[in-house]
Amino acid sequence: MLLCDIGNTSFHFKGDSENYKRDVAAFNPATITQKVYYISVNQAVSVKLKQLPNWIDLGKKIDKKKYYETMGIDRIVAVEACTNAVIIDAGSAITVDVVRDDEFMGGFIYPGVNAMQKTYSAISPALEYAFNFDLDLEKLPKNSQDAISYGFLKTLHTEVLSHNLPIVLTGGDAHKIATLFKEARVDEALLFKGMQELIVKKL
Amino acid sequence: MLLCDIGNTSFHFKGDSENYKRDVAAFNPATITQKVYYISVNQAVSVKLKQLPNWIDLGKKIDKKKYYETMGIDRIVAVEACTNAVIIDAGSAITVDVVRDDEFMGGFIYPGVNAMQKTYSAISPALEYAFNFDLDLEKLPKNSQDAISYGFLKTLHTEVLSHNLPIVLTGGDAHKIATLFKEARVDEALLFKGMQELIVKKL
Repeated sequence: MLLCDIGNTSFHFKGDSENYKRDVAAFNPATITQKVYYISVNQAVSVKLKQLPNWIDLGKKIDKKKYYETMGIDRIVAVEACTNAVIIDAGSAITVDVVRDDEFMGGFIYPGVNAMQKTYSAISPALEYAFNFDLDLEKLPKNSQDAISYGFLKTLHTEVLSHNLPIVLTGGDAHKIATLFKEARVDEALLFKGMQELIVKKL
Repeated sequence: MLLCDIGNTSFHFKGDSENYKRDVAAFNPATITQKVYYISVNQAVSVKLKQLPNWIDLGKKIDKKKYYETMGIDRIVAVEACTNAVIIDAGSAITVDVVRDDEFMGGFIYPGVNAMQKTYSAISPALEYAFNFDLDLEKLPKNSQDAISYGFLKTLHTEVLSHNLPIVLTGGDAHKIATLFKEARVDEALLFKGMQELIVKKL
Protein backbone atom coordinates (compact mmCIF):
# COMPACT_ATOMS: atom_id res chain seq x y z
CA MET A 1 0.00 0.00 0.00
CA LEU A 2 1.39 3.42 -0.95
CA LEU A 3 0.69 6.41 1.34
CA CYS A 4 1.55 10.05 0.67
CA ASP A 5 1.64 13.05 3.00
CA ILE A 6 1.71 16.27 0.96
CA GLY A 7 2.93 19.46 2.62
CA ASN A 8 3.82 22.93 1.39
CA THR A 9 7.23 21.83 0.11
CA SER A 10 7.21 18.05 -0.48
CA PHE A 11 5.37 14.83 -1.29
CA HIS A 12 6.36 12.28 1.38
CA PHE A 13 5.75 8.70 0.16
CA LYS A 14 5.65 5.63 2.38
CA GLY A 15 5.13 2.11 1.07
CA ASP A 16 5.76 -1.32 2.58
CA SER A 17 9.47 -0.99 1.83
CA GLU A 18 9.76 2.56 0.49
CA ASN A 19 10.13 5.92 2.22
CA TYR A 20 11.07 8.93 0.09
CA LYS A 21 10.31 12.59 -0.52
CA ARG A 22 9.78 14.52 -3.74
CA ASP A 23 9.86 18.27 -4.19
CA VAL A 24 6.40 19.80 -4.76
CA ALA A 25 7.75 22.20 -7.41
CA ALA A 26 9.36 19.46 -9.54
CA PHE A 27 7.30 16.30 -9.04
CA ASN A 28 4.46 15.25 -11.38
CA PRO A 29 1.95 13.04 -9.49
CA ALA A 30 0.62 11.60 -12.80
CA THR A 31 3.86 9.57 -13.02
CA ILE A 32 2.53 7.34 -10.21
CA THR A 33 0.20 4.71 -11.67
CA GLN A 34 -0.50 2.55 -8.59
CA LYS A 35 -3.14 3.39 -5.98
CA VAL A 36 -2.02 6.12 -3.53
CA TYR A 37 -3.84 7.11 -0.34
CA TYR A 38 -2.96 10.72 0.44
CA ILE A 39 -3.53 13.70 2.68
CA SER A 40 -2.64 17.22 1.48
CA VAL A 41 -2.42 20.67 3.05
CA ASN A 42 -1.29 22.02 -0.33
CA GLN A 43 -4.30 23.49 -2.14
CA ALA A 44 -2.57 23.72 -5.54
CA VAL A 45 -1.57 20.04 -5.43
CA SER A 46 -5.01 18.97 -4.15
CA VAL A 47 -6.68 20.51 -7.20
CA LYS A 48 -4.39 18.53 -9.57
CA LEU A 49 -4.94 15.27 -7.71
CA LYS A 50 -8.72 15.46 -8.16
CA GLN A 51 -8.06 14.66 -11.86
CA LEU A 52 -6.14 11.46 -11.03
CA PRO A 53 -8.47 8.58 -10.07
CA ASN A 54 -5.70 6.44 -8.52
CA TRP A 55 -5.01 9.16 -5.91
CA ILE A 56 -7.47 8.71 -3.01
CA ASP A 57 -8.02 11.63 -0.65
CA LEU A 58 -8.13 10.34 2.93
CA GLY A 59 -9.15 13.81 4.11
CA LYS A 60 -12.64 13.03 2.83
CA LYS A 61 -12.97 10.03 5.16
CA ILE A 62 -12.68 12.12 8.31
CA ASP A 63 -15.50 13.32 10.51
CA LYS A 64 -14.37 16.96 10.77
CA LYS A 65 -17.04 17.96 13.27
CA LYS A 66 -14.63 17.17 16.11
CA TYR A 67 -12.09 19.64 14.66
CA TYR A 68 -12.40 23.05 13.04
CA GLU A 69 -12.88 24.31 9.51
CA THR A 70 -9.34 25.59 8.78
CA MET A 71 -7.41 22.94 10.73
CA GLY A 72 -4.73 21.21 8.60
CA ILE A 73 -5.52 17.62 7.66
CA ASP A 74 -2.02 16.58 8.79
CA ARG A 75 -2.83 17.74 12.33
CA ILE A 76 -6.18 15.93 12.26
CA VAL A 77 -4.61 12.66 11.11
CA ALA A 78 -1.94 12.89 13.84
CA VAL A 79 -4.66 13.47 16.46
CA GLU A 80 -6.62 10.48 15.12
CA ALA A 81 -3.54 8.32 15.72
CA CYS A 82 -3.28 9.22 19.47
CA THR A 83 -5.38 8.63 22.61
CA ASN A 84 -3.60 10.71 25.26
CA ALA A 85 -0.83 12.99 24.02
CA VAL A 86 0.60 16.38 23.26
CA ILE A 87 1.57 16.00 19.60
CA ILE A 88 4.33 18.29 18.33
CA ASP A 89 4.76 18.30 14.55
CA ALA A 90 7.93 20.29 13.85
CA GLY A 91 8.03 21.44 10.24
CA SER A 92 7.87 24.89 8.61
CA ALA A 93 5.46 25.60 11.47
CA ILE A 94 5.44 23.72 14.77
CA THR A 95 1.88 22.57 15.45
CA VAL A 96 1.01 21.44 18.96
CA ASP A 97 -2.22 19.47 19.49
CA VAL A 98 -3.64 18.05 22.69
CA VAL A 99 -5.65 14.80 22.80
CA ARG A 100 -7.17 13.59 26.06
CA ASP A 101 -9.06 10.27 26.23
CA ASP A 102 -9.39 10.26 22.44
CA GLU A 103 -10.89 13.75 22.48
CA PHE A 104 -9.27 16.69 20.63
CA MET A 105 -8.88 19.48 23.20
CA GLY A 106 -7.46 22.11 20.82
CA GLY A 107 -4.03 23.13 19.64
CA PHE A 108 -1.76 25.95 18.67
CA ILE A 109 0.74 26.96 16.00
CA TYR A 110 4.30 28.09 16.70
CA PRO A 111 6.89 29.09 14.10
CA GLY A 112 9.28 26.37 12.90
CA VAL A 113 13.05 26.32 13.46
CA ASN A 114 13.97 27.96 10.13
CA ALA A 115 11.21 30.56 10.32
CA MET A 116 12.22 31.58 13.84
CA GLN A 117 15.91 31.75 12.92
CA LYS A 118 15.05 34.22 10.15
CA THR A 119 12.84 36.21 12.49
CA TYR A 120 15.64 36.91 14.99
CA SER A 121 18.14 37.78 12.22
CA ALA A 122 15.63 40.22 10.71
CA ILE A 123 15.09 42.01 14.05
CA SER A 124 18.79 42.77 14.44
CA PRO A 125 22.12 41.48 13.10
CA ALA A 126 23.07 41.27 16.80
CA LEU A 127 20.62 38.34 17.09
CA GLU A 128 22.01 36.36 14.14
CA TYR A 129 22.97 33.18 16.00
CA ALA A 130 22.17 29.52 15.31
CA PHE A 131 19.93 28.07 18.03
CA ASN A 132 21.62 26.12 20.81
CA PHE A 133 19.62 22.90 21.13
CA ASP A 134 21.85 21.79 24.02
CA LEU A 135 20.63 24.72 26.07
CA ASP A 136 20.20 24.22 29.83
CA LEU A 137 16.48 24.85 30.28
CA GLU A 138 16.81 25.20 34.04
CA LYS A 139 19.04 28.27 33.84
CA LEU A 140 18.18 31.77 32.68
CA PRO A 141 20.62 32.73 29.89
CA LYS A 142 23.50 35.14 30.24
CA ASN A 143 24.66 35.23 26.63
CA SER A 144 22.98 36.24 23.35
CA GLN A 145 22.90 32.81 21.67
CA ASP A 146 21.22 31.20 24.67
CA ALA A 147 18.94 34.23 25.11
CA ILE A 148 17.32 33.66 21.68
CA SER A 149 17.44 29.84 22.02
CA TYR A 150 15.62 30.07 25.36
CA GLY A 151 13.14 32.58 23.90
CA PHE A 152 12.30 30.20 21.08
CA LEU A 153 12.49 26.84 22.87
CA LYS A 154 11.96 27.22 26.61
CA THR A 155 8.69 29.12 26.18
CA LEU A 156 7.39 26.26 23.98
CA HIS A 157 8.75 23.64 26.39
CA THR A 158 7.13 25.19 29.48
CA GLU A 159 3.76 25.43 27.73
CA VAL A 160 3.89 21.86 26.35
CA LEU A 161 4.81 20.37 29.74
CA SER A 162 1.98 22.25 31.46
CA HIS A 163 -0.53 19.84 29.86
CA ASN A 164 0.85 16.82 31.79
CA LEU A 165 0.45 14.32 28.98
CA PRO A 166 2.88 12.05 27.11
CA ILE A 167 4.67 14.04 24.39
CA VAL A 168 4.97 12.72 20.83
CA LEU A 169 7.34 14.44 18.40
CA THR A 170 7.08 14.15 14.63
CA GLY A 171 7.99 16.17 11.50
CA GLY A 172 11.26 17.04 9.76
CA ASP A 173 12.77 18.87 12.75
CA ALA A 174 11.61 16.35 15.38
CA HIS A 175 15.17 15.22 16.13
CA LYS A 176 16.46 18.79 16.64
CA ILE A 177 13.67 19.55 19.11
CA ALA A 178 14.01 16.14 20.80
CA THR A 179 17.28 17.20 22.44
CA LEU A 180 15.26 19.59 24.60
CA PHE A 181 12.12 17.50 25.04
CA LYS A 182 13.80 14.64 26.88
CA GLU A 183 10.36 13.42 28.03
CA ALA A 184 9.17 13.01 24.42
CA ARG A 185 8.94 10.00 22.15
CA VAL A 186 9.96 10.66 18.53
CA ASP A 187 7.63 9.00 16.03
CA GLU A 188 8.50 9.95 12.47
CA ALA A 189 5.79 7.68 11.08
CA LEU A 190 2.93 9.11 13.19
CA LEU A 191 1.01 10.59 10.25
CA PHE A 192 1.34 7.39 8.24
CA LYS A 193 0.05 5.39 11.23
CA GLY A 194 -2.94 7.73 11.43
CA MET A 195 -3.55 7.28 7.71
CA GLN A 196 -3.37 3.48 7.96
CA GLU A 197 -5.88 3.49 10.85
CA LEU A 198 -8.25 5.57 8.76
CA ILE A 199 -7.97 3.16 5.83
CA VAL A 200 -8.71 0.16 8.07
CA LYS A 201 -11.66 1.91 9.78
CA LYS A 202 -13.27 3.67 6.84
CA LEU A 203 -12.64 1.79 3.60
CA MET B 1 17.40 67.33 32.80
CA LEU B 2 17.09 65.77 29.33
CA LEU B 3 17.30 61.98 28.96
CA CYS B 4 17.40 60.01 25.72
CA ASP B 5 16.89 56.31 25.05
CA ILE B 6 18.17 55.42 21.57
CA GLY B 7 16.94 52.25 19.91
CA ASN B 8 17.20 50.79 16.43
CA THR B 9 14.46 53.02 15.05
CA SER B 10 14.08 56.10 17.28
CA PHE B 11 15.53 58.63 19.74
CA HIS B 12 13.14 58.77 22.71
CA PHE B 13 13.59 62.04 24.66
CA LYS B 14 12.30 62.67 28.17
CA GLY B 15 12.69 65.96 29.99
CA ASP B 16 10.94 67.46 33.02
CA SER B 17 7.97 68.40 30.87
CA GLU B 18 8.85 66.86 27.50
CA ASN B 19 8.36 63.37 26.10
CA TYR B 20 8.87 62.85 22.37
CA LYS B 21 10.40 60.54 19.78
CA ARG B 22 12.50 61.29 16.71
CA ASP B 23 13.21 58.95 13.82
CA VAL B 24 16.80 57.67 13.78
CA ALA B 25 17.06 58.00 9.99
CA ALA B 26 16.02 61.68 9.93
CA PHE B 27 17.14 63.23 13.23
CA ASN B 28 20.47 65.07 13.64
CA PRO B 29 21.60 64.92 17.31
CA ALA B 30 23.88 67.96 16.80
CA THR B 31 20.71 70.11 16.76
CA ILE B 32 20.41 69.54 20.54
CA THR B 33 22.66 71.99 22.38
CA GLN B 34 21.70 71.30 26.01
CA LYS B 35 23.18 68.46 28.08
CA VAL B 36 21.64 65.05 27.24
CA TYR B 37 22.18 61.86 29.27
CA TYR B 38 21.67 58.92 26.91
CA ILE B 39 21.78 55.17 26.46
CA SER B 40 22.05 53.66 22.97
CA VAL B 41 21.79 50.18 21.47
CA ASN B 42 22.34 51.72 18.05
CA GLN B 43 26.01 51.39 17.10
CA ALA B 44 25.86 53.85 14.20
CA VAL B 45 24.31 56.56 16.38
CA SER B 46 26.72 55.84 19.26
CA VAL B 47 29.70 56.55 16.99
CA LYS B 48 28.26 59.96 16.00
CA LEU B 49 27.47 60.90 19.60
CA LYS B 50 31.10 60.42 20.67
CA GLN B 51 31.84 63.62 18.72
CA LEU B 52 29.24 65.65 20.66
CA PRO B 53 30.49 66.66 24.14
CA ASN B 54 27.01 67.61 25.46
CA TRP B 55 25.79 64.00 24.90
CA ILE B 56 26.78 61.93 27.96
CA ASP B 57 26.82 58.15 27.62
CA LEU B 58 25.27 56.59 30.74
CA GLY B 59 26.32 53.16 29.49
CA LYS B 60 29.84 54.00 30.62
CA LYS B 61 28.69 54.47 34.22
CA ILE B 62 27.52 50.88 34.61
CA ASP B 63 29.39 48.02 36.26
CA LYS B 64 28.88 45.47 33.49
CA LYS B 65 30.45 42.57 35.38
CA LYS B 66 27.00 41.63 36.72
CA TYR B 67 25.72 41.34 33.15
CA TYR B 68 27.22 39.96 29.95
CA GLU B 69 29.26 41.40 27.11
CA THR B 70 26.59 41.60 24.39
CA MET B 71 23.61 42.49 26.61
CA GLY B 72 21.78 45.60 25.42
CA ILE B 73 22.26 48.69 27.62
CA ASP B 74 18.47 49.24 27.63
CA ARG B 75 17.98 45.85 29.31
CA ILE B 76 20.71 46.61 31.85
CA VAL B 77 19.21 50.00 32.77
CA ALA B 78 15.76 48.42 33.22
CA VAL B 79 17.26 45.76 35.51
CA GLU B 80 19.07 48.47 37.50
CA ALA B 81 15.67 50.11 38.11
CA CYS B 82 14.12 46.98 39.71
CA THR B 83 14.65 44.87 42.84
CA ASN B 84 12.33 41.90 42.34
CA ALA B 85 10.71 41.59 38.94
CA VAL B 86 10.30 39.95 35.59
CA ILE B 87 10.81 42.89 33.22
CA ILE B 88 9.21 42.59 29.79
CA ASP B 89 10.32 45.24 27.28
CA ALA B 90 8.07 44.84 24.25
CA GLY B 91 9.61 46.49 21.21
CA SER B 92 10.98 45.12 17.90
CA ALA B 93 12.13 42.28 20.14
CA ILE B 94 10.52 41.34 23.46
CA THR B 95 13.28 41.08 26.06
CA VAL B 96 12.49 39.36 29.34
CA ASP B 97 14.86 39.84 32.29
CA VAL B 98 14.63 38.44 35.79
CA VAL B 99 15.85 40.32 38.88
CA ARG B 100 15.71 38.69 42.31
CA ASP B 101 16.81 40.61 45.42
CA ASP B 102 18.62 43.15 43.24
CA GLU B 103 20.53 40.39 41.47
CA PHE B 104 20.28 39.85 37.70
CA MET B 105 19.38 36.18 37.22
CA GLY B 106 19.50 36.18 33.39
CA GLY B 107 17.05 36.85 30.61
CA PHE B 108 15.84 35.88 27.18
CA ILE B 109 14.82 37.42 23.88
CA TYR B 110 11.52 36.72 22.13
CA PRO B 111 10.37 38.22 18.80
CA GLY B 112 8.25 41.39 18.98
CA VAL B 113 4.62 41.66 17.86
CA ASN B 114 5.37 42.94 14.34
CA ALA B 115 8.22 40.48 13.78
CA MET B 116 6.07 37.53 14.85
CA GLN B 117 3.15 38.65 12.70
CA LYS B 118 5.45 38.64 9.65
CA THR B 119 6.83 35.24 10.62
CA TYR B 120 3.43 33.52 10.57
CA SER B 121 2.43 35.20 7.29
CA ALA B 122 5.71 34.08 5.69
CA ILE B 123 5.17 30.43 6.74
CA SER B 124 1.80 30.24 4.98
CA PRO B 125 -0.90 32.62 3.71
CA ALA B 126 -3.25 30.41 5.75
CA LEU B 127 -1.65 31.89 8.90
CA GLU B 128 -2.07 35.54 7.88
CA TYR B 129 -4.20 36.71 10.82
CA ALA B 130 -3.82 39.65 13.22
CA PHE B 131 -3.13 38.45 16.76
CA ASN B 132 -6.09 38.22 19.11
CA PHE B 133 -4.94 39.96 22.30
CA ASP B 134 -8.28 39.14 23.95
CA LEU B 135 -7.49 35.44 23.69
CA ASP B 136 -8.69 33.17 26.51
CA LEU B 137 -5.41 31.79 27.83
CA GLU B 138 -7.13 29.03 29.77
CA LYS B 139 -8.55 27.36 26.69
CA LEU B 140 -6.73 25.52 23.91
CA PRO B 141 -7.68 27.13 20.58
CA LYS B 142 -10.01 25.66 18.01
CA ASN B 143 -9.58 28.27 15.27
CA SER B 144 -6.61 29.52 13.23
CA GLN B 145 -6.45 33.08 14.59
CA ASP B 146 -6.39 31.89 18.18
CA ALA B 147 -3.99 29.06 17.29
CA ILE B 148 -1.28 31.54 16.23
CA SER B 149 -2.15 34.03 18.99
CA TYR B 150 -1.81 31.30 21.61
CA GLY B 151 1.44 30.10 19.97
CA PHE B 152 2.92 33.57 20.20
CA LEU B 153 1.46 34.78 23.52
CA LYS B 154 0.50 31.87 25.77
CA THR B 155 3.96 30.28 25.50
CA LEU B 156 5.52 33.58 26.61
CA HIS B 157 2.90 34.03 29.35
CA THR B 158 3.40 30.55 30.83
CA GLU B 159 7.18 31.00 30.92
CA VAL B 160 7.01 34.50 32.46
CA LEU B 161 4.58 33.40 35.19
CA SER B 162 6.77 30.42 36.08
CA HIS B 163 9.26 32.80 37.73
CA ASN B 164 6.75 33.85 40.43
CA LEU B 165 7.80 37.50 40.58
CA PRO B 166 5.99 40.80 40.01
CA ILE B 167 5.78 41.54 36.27
CA VAL B 168 6.70 44.96 34.86
CA LEU B 169 5.82 45.79 31.26
CA THR B 170 7.52 48.52 29.24
CA GLY B 171 8.27 49.38 25.59
CA GLY B 172 6.16 50.50 22.62
CA ASP B 173 3.92 47.41 22.61
CA ALA B 174 3.49 47.23 26.41
CA HIS B 175 -0.20 48.11 26.23
CA LYS B 176 -0.98 45.45 23.59
CA ILE B 177 0.68 42.75 25.70
CA ALA B 178 -0.88 44.07 28.92
CA THR B 179 -4.30 42.74 27.91
CA LEU B 180 -2.93 39.23 28.40
CA PHE B 181 -0.64 39.89 31.37
CA LYS B 182 -3.35 40.95 33.78
CA GLU B 183 -0.92 40.46 36.67
CA ALA B 184 1.52 43.00 35.19
CA ARG B 185 2.15 46.66 35.96
CA VAL B 186 2.78 48.84 32.88
CA ASP B 187 5.62 51.32 33.42
CA GLU B 188 6.39 53.24 30.25
CA ALA B 189 9.04 55.33 32.02
CA LEU B 190 10.98 52.39 33.45
CA LEU B 191 14.15 53.01 31.43
CA PHE B 192 14.13 56.70 32.25
CA LYS B 193 13.77 55.85 35.94
CA GLY B 194 16.78 53.55 35.68
CA MET B 195 18.74 56.29 33.93
CA GLN B 196 17.84 58.83 36.63
CA GLU B 197 18.94 56.42 39.38
CA LEU B 198 22.26 55.96 37.60
CA ILE B 199 22.78 59.72 37.36
CA VAL B 200 22.06 60.18 41.07
CA LYS B 201 24.31 57.26 42.06
CA LYS B 202 27.23 57.76 39.73
CA LEU B 203 27.63 61.40 38.76
